[in-house]
Amino acid sequence: MADVHGDAKIKDGQAEAEDTNNMAAWLLGVKKIQIQPYLLPPLGAQDVRVRIKAVGICGSDVHHYTHMRCANFVVKKPMIIGHECAGFVEEVGSEVKSLKVGDRVALEPGISCQSCDLCKNGRYNLCSQMKFFGSPPTNGSLANQVVHPARLCFKLPETVSLEEGAMCEPLSVGVHACRRANVGPDTNVLIIGAGPIGLVTMLAARAFGAPRIIMVDVDELRLSFAKDLGADEIVKGSTSIQDIPEELLCIHKAMNTCVDVTFDCVGFTKTMTTALNATRAGGKVCLVGLGQSEMAIPLMAAATTREIDVIGIFRYRNTWPLCIELLRSGKIDVKKLITHRFQFDNEGVQKAFETSAKGGNAIKVMFNL
Amino acid sequence: MADVHGDAKIKDGQAEAEDTNNMAAWLLGVKKIQIQPYLLPPLGAQDVRVRIKAVGICGSDVHHYTHMRCANFVVKKPMIIGHECAGFVEEVGSEVKSLKVGDRVALEPGISCQSCDLCKNGRYNLCSQMKFFGSPPTNGSLANQVVHPARLCFKLPETVSLEEGAMCEPLSVGVHACRRANVGPDTNVLIIGAGPIGLVTMLAARAFGAPRIIMVDVDELRLSFAKDLGADEIVKGSTSIQDIPEELLCIHKAMNTCVDVTFDCVGFTKTMTTALNATRAGGKVCLVGLGQSEMAIPLMAAATTREIDVIGIFRYRNTWPLCIELLRSGKIDVKKLITHRFQFDNEGVQKAFETSAKGGNAIKVMFNL
Amino acid sequence: MADVHGDAKIKDGQAEAEDTNNMAAWLLGVKKIQIQPYLLPPLGAQDVRVRIKAVGICGSDVHHYTHMRCANFVVKKPMIIGHECAGFVEEVGSEVKSLKVGDRVALEPGISCQSCDLCKNGRYNLCSQMKFFGSPPTNGSLANQVVHPARLCFKLPETVSLEEGAMCEPLSVGVHACRRANVGPDTNVLIIGAGPIGLVTMLAARAFGAPRIIMVDVDELRLSFAKDLGADEIVKGSTSIQDIPEELLCIHKAMNTCVDVTFDCVGFTKTMTTALNATRAGGKVCLVGLGQSEMAIPLMAAATTREIDVIGIFRYRNTWPLCIELLRSGKIDVKKLITHRFQFDNEGVQKAFETSAKGGNAIKVMFNL
Amino acid sequence: MADVHGDAKIKDGQAEAEDTNNMAAWLLGVKKIQIQPYLLPPLGAQDVRVRIKAVGICGSDVHHYTHMRCANFVVKKPMIIGHECAGFVEEVGSEVKSLKVGDRVALEPGISCQSCDLCKNGRYNLCSQMKFFGSPPTNGSLANQVVHPARLCFKLPETVSLEEGAMCEPLSVGVHACRRANVGPDTNVLIIGAGPIGLVTMLAARAFGAPRIIMVDVDELRLSFAKDLGADEIVKGSTSIQDIPEELLCIHKAMNTCVDVTFDCVGFTKTMTTALNATRAGGKVCLVGLGQSEMAIPLMAAATTREIDVIGIFRYRNTWPLCIELLRSGKIDVKKLITHRFQFDNEGVQKAFETSAKGGNAIKVMFNL
Repeated sequence: MADVHGDAKIKDGQAEAEDTNNMAAWLLGVKKIQIQPYLLPPLGAQDVRVRIKAVGICGSDVHHYTHMRCANFVVKKPMIIGHECAGFVEEVGSEVKSLKVGDRVALEPGISCQSCDLCKNGRYNLCSQMKFFGSPPTNGSLANQVVHPARLCFKLPETVSLEEGAMCEPLSVGVHACRRANVGPDTNVLIIGAGPIGLVTMLAARAFGAPRIIMVDVDELRLSFAKDLGADEIVKGSTSIQDIPEELLCIHKAMNTCVDVTFDCVGFTKTMTTALNATRAGGKVCLVGLGQSEMAIPLMAAATTREIDVIGIFRYRNTWPLCIELLRSGKIDVKKLITHRFQFDNEGVQKAFETSAKGGNAIKVMFNL
Repeated sequence: MADVHGDAKIKDGQAEAEDTNNMAAWLLGVKKIQIQPYLLPPLGAQDVRVRIKAVGICGSDVHHYTHMRCANFVVKKPMIIGHECAGFVEEVGSEVKSLKVGDRVALEPGISCQSCDLCKNGRYNLCSQMKFFGSPPTNGSLANQVVHPARLCFKLPETVSLEEGAMCEPLSVGVHACRRANVGPDTNVLIIGAGPIGLVTMLAARAFGAPRIIMVDVDELRLSFAKDLGADEIVKGSTSIQDIPEELLCIHKAMNTCVDVTFDCVGFTKTMTTALNATRAGGKVCLVGLGQSEMAIPLMAAATTREIDVIGIFRYRNTWPLCIELLRSGKIDVKKLITHRFQFDNEGVQKAFETSAKGGNAIKVMFNL
Repeated sequence: MADVHGDAKIKDGQAEAEDTNNMAAWLLGVKKIQIQPYLLPPLGAQDVRVRIKAVGICGSDVHHYTHMRCANFVVKKPMIIGHECAGFVEEVGSEVKSLKVGDRVALEPGISCQSCDLCKNGRYNLCSQMKFFGSPPTNGSLANQVVHPARLCFKLPETVSLEEGAMCEPLSVGVHACRRANVGPDTNVLIIGAGPIGLVTMLAARAFGAPRIIMVDVDELRLSFAKDLGADEIVKGSTSIQDIPEELLCIHKAMNTCVDVTFDCVGFTKTMTTALNATRAGGKVCLVGLGQSEMAIPLMAAATTREIDVIGIFRYRNTWPLCIELLRSGKIDVKKLITHRFQFDNEGVQKAFETSAKGGNAIKVMFNL
Repeated sequence: MADVHGDAKIKDGQAEAEDTNNMAAWLLGVKKIQIQPYLLPPLGAQDVRVRIKAVGICGSDVHHYTHMRCANFVVKKPMIIGHECAGFVEEVGSEVKSLKVGDRVALEPGISCQSCDLCKNGRYNLCSQMKFFGSPPTNGSLANQVVHPARLCFKLPETVSLEEGAMCEPLSVGVHACRRANVGPDTNVLIIGAGPIGLVTMLAARAFGAPRIIMVDVDELRLSFAKDLGADEIVKGSTSIQDIPEELLCIHKAMNTCVDVTFDCVGFTKTMTTALNATRAGGKVCLVGLGQSEMAIPLMAAATTREIDVIGIFRYRNTWPLCIELLRSGKIDVKKLITHRFQFDNEGVQKAFETSAKGGNAIKVMFNL
């Protein structure tokens, strides 16, 4: 298969004249994004060309914007940013049967190799050959148009908006986390971190049947947002390790039964320590947040004397159909998460990333293209 | 059910005169064990009285001996030590049908409540009401006789010796670890730590079909022991975190394919860091060793970008029948692990614990009663 | 543990004079039930005595009533019938801590041995030593009072009525079926049979997140009941094997996506053939209904070329806490299922069983004691 | 991806003159196979061209030969037969990196679409778009050369012969069955049918750690073959349903413990009835054999009162690497299964299929090309 994301013929961000009608947001340096032409790669037989209409900003996009890297992925040359997106199909490859021009689609951003052991075993999110929108060195989707494999473009029902379509990406993280943790009507859930990922995890856990969900955060604004969105109880956390014993008391009081699964959507020594202590024997702690690369945690008391499993969550797999169904049926409403909207121009992009980086009352920042 | 382990009518280690024919090894203080009478609790309807003939010393026994505690379990009053044991049935309770006087049995040391949610779900090893031989405040089994529920006494075939019967206890840890990690013919295994638990985990992994097993330890003597016992390759480890990159090279060279499951039978920051780095994306790290209570580990790179799950292992459940079958069929031979034997008298007990505490060439230290 | 259900000192249905205040419904022969005294067994240390206030009639009770047997269980001597029940605690055994006099409780009817391999592995519903209310030779619970182990009596919240408490028993079958089939937000469900068990399976599947549930029955009354209760679509089935192809067309049209899991709550050649044909490759067919002992089914096309697994469902395990929570939270409402109520006297019992045996608009027939 | 198996430019079995150096065994009608030229499809970028050196005959090949169909797959036009094969790589596509000319490879015969839900979830063996060697309408591999995707050609170690490479295909069925049934050191196994698939299932079960394996067949020759190959005990079965009770006695006597998993490698009413009755409560029956399309079986007593699951097995997935490792390490020896060898000419093909069709002492019939 052709590499549909990495091959744009661009020199220092300058594309051929005929492509000025396809503009994209190029990350050129720390906090430096500019809208410049993007020469699309050729359309493969199984690809579609999509006119992008909605793109959300993710924490990893912000991290690229502020640090030119995220986890082990380093931005070494100009790269189009963005990966939460939806739009209209404008052209279909010669072998594409599942889509037609005009279809409204949400895009799953990662192209796996389909051939390695992990792909063949169904764990394609771990494919080492993954090409993922806006994860260096693969260009992203904050652009007027992109070319993408048809199998990764999922048709939206009429009642699901393109913004909601773009929200399938963050929601997928919550869905994958709930699947991996096997959340169901028996699972009382604690979620640490009420940012966008914590909130979509809450929405997903509810859809999976979780009877009781408690959320912890240090930010009261976000906690109150979480409560409005459906958390059963909220607990004001602290950033200090010394406060953990008291925090645990508050959590257990709020839960009023045992914590079966904890999602740490922050990922710090402090939060994982809380998570491991709060969870019942035989329960699970799912690490979703990408906070600290190294954490000093009480594994002996948790893993080896209470058999709490620590489950890692990386992106998602096979989640779009379920997300779309959950949005269609109304079991999940992500519209309230979109707190800010910006135009797709140099000023809008600058403001949008600054807004998203500040956090606080900005949950999901969305571009309308 | 009566509390068959905790009720001995003993005052400061002194039992009634009529019980001098039942002597036991009482832990009285740090490095202070004395053989004194032990008044057995009454025989319940579903209990048996067993004349103990073989008792092995476990790392946790040594920890009690040297620190008067192990993990969160603290020895607060004189307690009989020991829990790896086998012997002859001498008396059976009125409702016991599965055993008769004279049967040779291996004893599973923990009595769970059988009624809590964890017990009813089959995870009885996590029962919070567990009464476990030699885990404070429950008396242990380094005694001439003990009373124990018949359902936890497993008949040994003629060809399996009582010493081998006592070895079912440590072997159970390896078996439970392999079950929890789902080891099979597809699973290439790395084991960190070639002490008794690392070695029984190796034997169990082989019996579960693991095609390739690499062992790491800092002690060359133990590594060579592991090689003799069947490790495919051995790797000399270091205690320094700085050496991890080189150690990983050696491990991958020795494995010559990916590491699917790593058992950390040590449990330190250093060993867990090696474990998390060495294991493939989507693999598992099983924490078996009780080294440090807190570990500073690279969870972000492991759990959240490679979905390595960290699986905790606490003791075992439902392992005796399998262990006995593995010994009977010869698929596992534990006899070589018994490197030292001692008599059951004050001098023997002292020497035995000192020998076990030293480690080195002492793998399993066994009492013959 | 004492046998708390089987030991009543009764001769030909006649108990001692002092026990006339505890009356029970004795099944004496085909369609012959009489209310006679029942001498309670002694209260064990871990038992409670419960004054029964609500008892539902189950299909297996009716089968005992009409055939003096159900599946392989044959009624050979007078036996108290009934097993779906709830009431007040009137007396607690000396070791009972979880309950006190006056507590309102729902009773799980089966007492497993807690010691066999199946019990220790958490599959206690398969225990071969099971003593189950109203399953010969164990007396049932259609009585003023029963003695039962405290661990099988689950406290009801104030907002859950005793009738709802009795409904935990049939609901448990649906919950267990959904757990075994791993129903979740990804699982489109087909249910064949809209009788009481089909309906509770529907309610449970919804609570487990099933996005789409189609119900098939031959009885239009029951179908319309199912639709009112929440089925997405209903399909009128036929009893003739010849009609299966057309029935499949209707099912697929109604489902409008693939069938991931089918629950056959009838259990005939016809229904299992429909189930196996309707379900997608890699899906599951759960056999819940006890219709025919032998079925002629197309396993080759289903199991061996499409890897559909046929999952057997026998009663339930560990379901009461979840059922009570689902009732408390309002996620499941079983009250509408109770279509008929009768008094606990000879006439009421006769009428109740006749009503239940007729089926039709009688879904759940309940006694108020 | 190009359709590498179905596109040969052949008219009534006549290829262009330039292709006479690639001959293949064309199935033209019932029991009518002729060796004729086969024009290879063009080599795709990710394909390799393989010179086939060893091809085994499978029961499904024989079924095509004798009935022009197998299960639902009907031969409607001339088709090359065969799918168990190995050979040398002679040409590699432009993007192939995993293989080079001269490599000895075993071929996995089925090309899945890699894009449907089942493929993406790792169950690619159930892909409805599967193109499988020698399964109509896809041409097979009993030919001098074939073109095949590189990802489905697995390099053989020097010590594994090409005949053993071809045996990876039937062995894969046994491996997939053992994985699906979760066979391990705890699993006592009953295998019904000692034909090629029963025997490879036995070899696989042993490699997965099964402690005890009992085989049943009606043919004493095959039973004695099974015993030589490693069955713990053999039981002479009968074809009559009346004999099942006695057969069960013999099976239980031979097993001497409970049957955890039964593999029915025959697939008739009689064998499935035996399987369901022989297996313990909570165990599994795996249906591997493609005997009768419809079976009249006692599901109520098995599935609904003992929770025996009936697991379907269709071909395999992700098995070649494990099979090759099992052969390399000597844990499985398939050489003894090859009882007959034939040349690749019209006479040899005729004789080979007749020999295979007769069964009896012919276990695996192999072509040397």
